[in-house]
Amino acid sequence: MSLGALEKPLLAGDGRALAKWISAAENRDPAVWELLARQYDRLGKASVLGVTGPPGAGKSTLIGLLVERLRKEGQKVGVLAVDPISPFSDGALLGDRIRLSNHFNDMGVFIRSVSTRGRLGGLSIATREAVHLMDLAGFDSILLETVGVGQSEVDVRRIADATMVVLVPESGDGIQVLKAGVLEIGDVLVVNKSDRERASELTLALKEMVSLSKRPQVPVVGTSQGDVKSIDDLFLVIQNQLTRLKAARRADRGAFERTELVESWVLGEVRRWLGTVVEDAANPYDFAMRFIKAWTPPRWK
Amino acid sequence: MSLGALEKPLLAGDGRALAKWISAAENRDPAVWELLARQYDRLGKASVLGVTGPPGAGKSTLIGLLVERLRKEGQKVGVLAVDPISPFSDGALLGDRIRLSNHFNDMGVFIRSVSTRGRLGGLSIATREAVHLMDLAGFDSILLETVGVGQSEVDVRRIADATMVVLVPESGDGIQVLKAGVLEIGDVLVVNKSDRERASELTLALKEMVSLSKRPQVPVVGTSQGDVKSIDDLFLVIQNQLTRLKAARRADRGAFERTELVESWVLGEVRRWLGTVVEDAANPYDFAMRFIKAWTPPRWK
Repeated sequence: MSLGALEKPLLAGDGRALAKWISAAENRDPAVWELLARQYDRLGKASVLGVTGPPGAGKSTLIGLLVERLRKEGQKVGVLAVDPISPFSDGALLGDRIRLSNHFNDMGVFIRSVSTRGRLGGLSIATREAVHLMDLAGFDSILLETVGVGQSEVDVRRIADATMVVLVPESGDGIQVLKAGVLEIGDVLVVNKSDRERASELTLALKEMVSLSKRPQVPVVGTSQGDVKSIDDLFLVIQNQLTRLKAARRADRGAFERTELVESWVLGEVRRWLGTVVEDAANPYDFAMRFIKAWTPPRWK
Repeated sequence: MSLGALEKPLLAGDGRALAKWISAAENRDPAVWELLARQYDRLGKASVLGVTGPPGAGKSTLIGLLVERLRKEGQKVGVLAVDPISPFSDGALLGDRIRLSNHFNDMGVFIRSVSTRGRLGGLSIATREAVHLMDLAGFDSILLETVGVGQSEVDVRRIADATMVVLVPESGDGIQVLKAGVLEIGDVLVVNKSDRERASELTLALKEMVSLSKRPQVPVVGTSQGDVKSIDDLFLVIQNQLTRLKAARRADRGAFERTELVESWVLGEVRRWLGTVVEDAANPYDFAMRFIKAWTPPRWK
């Protein structure tokens, strides 16, 4: 079935249509931009929570617990896991996707990973498009999981309405955490596996760092899978932060998105064009200067 | 004095002219590309050694010792330190530049840091240009210092003829090191401060990892500031690797350089152009599609 025929099913919330549209976004199919241009005014209903932190911090388990809570409230929930492709490891999949398997048969939960290669910024763009597509498909909450802090190819802050950083006592001392940009990214800081040794130490260090930072109101929450109350508390804190931050976060996003789309497209085009220029590259500076002379700005209007 | 008037002094090896040209590269002055286009055939005389590793590994001290050795052989030596500008910390200077101060009054040693902001890929381009400029100024060896492994904004492998990764016993266990891409980047692996506890452990772990890797011939060298022989050994190992790797490393560099120059210029141009388009960004996808229609490819020949 062509993508065009899958527009109505997508808007009606059909999971298979959504999956095909997300694949199209990964493949940079121009039909996705056409769809989003047409349906742009419908976007923005879903709340988007970024979930990030080092590998092994328990992000997937926490996401599973949050999904349960959101489902109890009758929400449709999308989970999007960003697959980082390391230049070295050639495709390291996010681990422990399996922990979300409880929800695999629930029609109100859509779980998907997104990945893409090659074009600069492509992963960031495909991720945002996948979020938009889930939004169009009627999901109320979207959880966006990325690995690592501060070095990810995908800037969750540019996509999510609020971001939760999940740490564990093993995540290292305060200075390392600070360096990793936790305070700049996190709207909720979670010390997971808070029953472990050194958890209270990390919690205290984070609270002190937060209180001295530019955003002293950022909450630090301890969680433990077995401690239901801790998950309830986290849930409330997240809802508060989403409500508080959503409007401001979305305000300048259109302009950023426009720039990112155009730049990524132009880069792809220029790279493609460079591939057609058979001249040797013996003097790259001479080539670049001749390119500048040959450049024509876009004819706008 | 205009840059044009500083071309001859640069080629004659004048340090002040070189410093001005490097500043011009940081500022993306088009005169730099014009100079390099004109003088491209003269490039490639200098040997370029990348020196990278975590903060505190003793890179600057080792560089100081290597500079001494190179000076004894009568070489002119350039040291270029790349200043990473974290999106969060707003300009963290490389530490301990001061350890190179022994050489500040030596005319045969040129020490400079390079940094730049803003334009995507700008730091990488300015760094390579600074290396080219030192090369034109007649430096025989250039040591290029970057912080961190595998996550740097500047890909040393694309600029250096060989790269030395400096680690210390505190650099963490083998798996962390492996993750950081040490094996992929390093042509010489140095365990510095090898008199410390756990140094032999790290050395063994590295040797084992190397032997199992795709590049089992990469040498692992233990060094200690006080142990002259260890520095002599390192020096020989580096010279060997430079000799062995130089030709292959340089082979496809022109094409890469051409692509990077053109892409970076185009991005700057597009960003500038986007700034002049006053239309609102209410529907970025609609905007991007109209941009694609307005796009004109470069008129080549």
